[in-house]
Amino acid sequence: MALATEVFQVRTGAEPAVVDIGYRLATFVRGRGDGLLSVFVPHSTAGLAIMEVGARSDRDLLAYLRDGMSPDRYRWEHRHGAPGHGADHIIPAFISPSLMIPVRGGAPTLGTWQTVVLVDTNVDNPVRDVRLSFLAA
Amino acid sequence: MALATEVFQVRTGAEPAVVDIGYRLATFVRGRGDGLLSVFVPHSTAGLAIMEVGARSDRDLLAYLRDGMSPDRYRWEHRHGAPGHGADHIIPAFISPSLMIPVRGGAPTLGTWQTVVLVDTNVDNPVRDVRLSFLAA
Amino acid sequence: MALATEVFQVRTGAEPAVVDIGYRLATFVRGRGDGLLSVFVPHSTAGLAIMEVGARSDRDLLAYLRDGMSPDRYRWEHRHGAPGHGADHIIPAFISPSLMIPVRGGAPTLGTWQTVVLVDTNVDNPVRDVRLSFLAA
Repeated sequence: MALATEVFQVRTGAEPAVVDIGYRLATFVRGRGDGLLSVFVPHSTAGLAIMEVGARSDRDLLAYLRDGMSPDRYRWEHRHGAPGHGADHIIPAFISPSLMIPVRGGAPTLGTWQTVVLVDTNVDNPVRDVRLSFLAA
Repeated sequence: MALATEVFQVRTGAEPAVVDIGYRLATFVRGRGDGLLSVFVPHSTAGLAIMEVGARSDRDLLAYLRDGMSPDRYRWEHRHGAPGHGADHIIPAFISPSLMIPVRGGAPTLGTWQTVVLVDTNVDNPVRDVRLSFLAA
Repeated sequence: MALATEVFQVRTGAEPAVVDIGYRLATFVRGRGDGLLSVFVPHSTAGLAIMEVGARSDRDLLAYLRDGMSPDRYRWEHRHGAPGHGADHIIPAFISPSLMIPVRGGAPTLGTWQTVVLVDTNVDNPVRDVRLSFLAA
């Protein structure tokens, strides 16, 4: 049995962004039966979250990351690129770049209001890779 | 090989709650040998954590979520239901609704002081679903 | 098919520490083909993160955990051991002790700047266990 894998790219642009990638996951696992889906971002300044979008919580998250993390308040030791870039590097410790989702009958078992989003506060990298890996049961 | 699955419900009540569900996991994997256990909450305002309970850290977590997230301080764009409900929607970005635990000989490999808890700050949804999925090795 | 498992120890010492364990993962999965790697810490005051090290972001993370969590500001209900120890117990709710990484051709699919670190703010436990479990595809 192989680990089915696909890597696709997401344009996150030059502003902090929360991008819905749920439809990519649904398309990838369609017809694959039961198993576990890994979603993985091979970048050190981006993360993945399962949340609702479309009702402004995605904007709330970005506002919270900016105000709650207060990138300007800290004297980050890692400093280069855009202001507050030091914070971009610690966000993945809290919003992990690795996520697992159970799959049943070729569909992710996400709830009605859940989708998977790519969280990217780094304004210096406008395109990101996402790796999907499916381990069939 | 199938993905063994069970969905059960947890009463989290009308107050922010941290509910120990470790015994449900232990019961579910008993006799199943080795593999990976996925714990998944199909809700957009709840999360899962691995932590100690019984020594008041669960209460500390709820206090920290209330004071650290300061739901009253932010003007959440997502606003309806109970005050501070906007924060409920971003907590799962930090306390993920998806968790994986290795299983050996029919038992989760949790440490002595670890258990799995459901974290639910949302006071408007008193009952939650939890999905367990076991992929045997 | 078995779940290949290894438990190793990491010395985190008597200061808050971020310890790179990426080379241990790489060594463990070498020659194992495709599958999913679980990294798990069986302790209630330590977590795992995927991040860059070597450019001071690891120090930024520790500084943020100290200042952002403000262990001295809160009256943690769980209190014993070193000052601020109550915070050590809630950090794993945010920096989970469980992590999954897809493996392809005997290598973790980490990005160029990513490694896996053990995050341990607890100064009272200088040695930690880490469990690696590989489920082959």
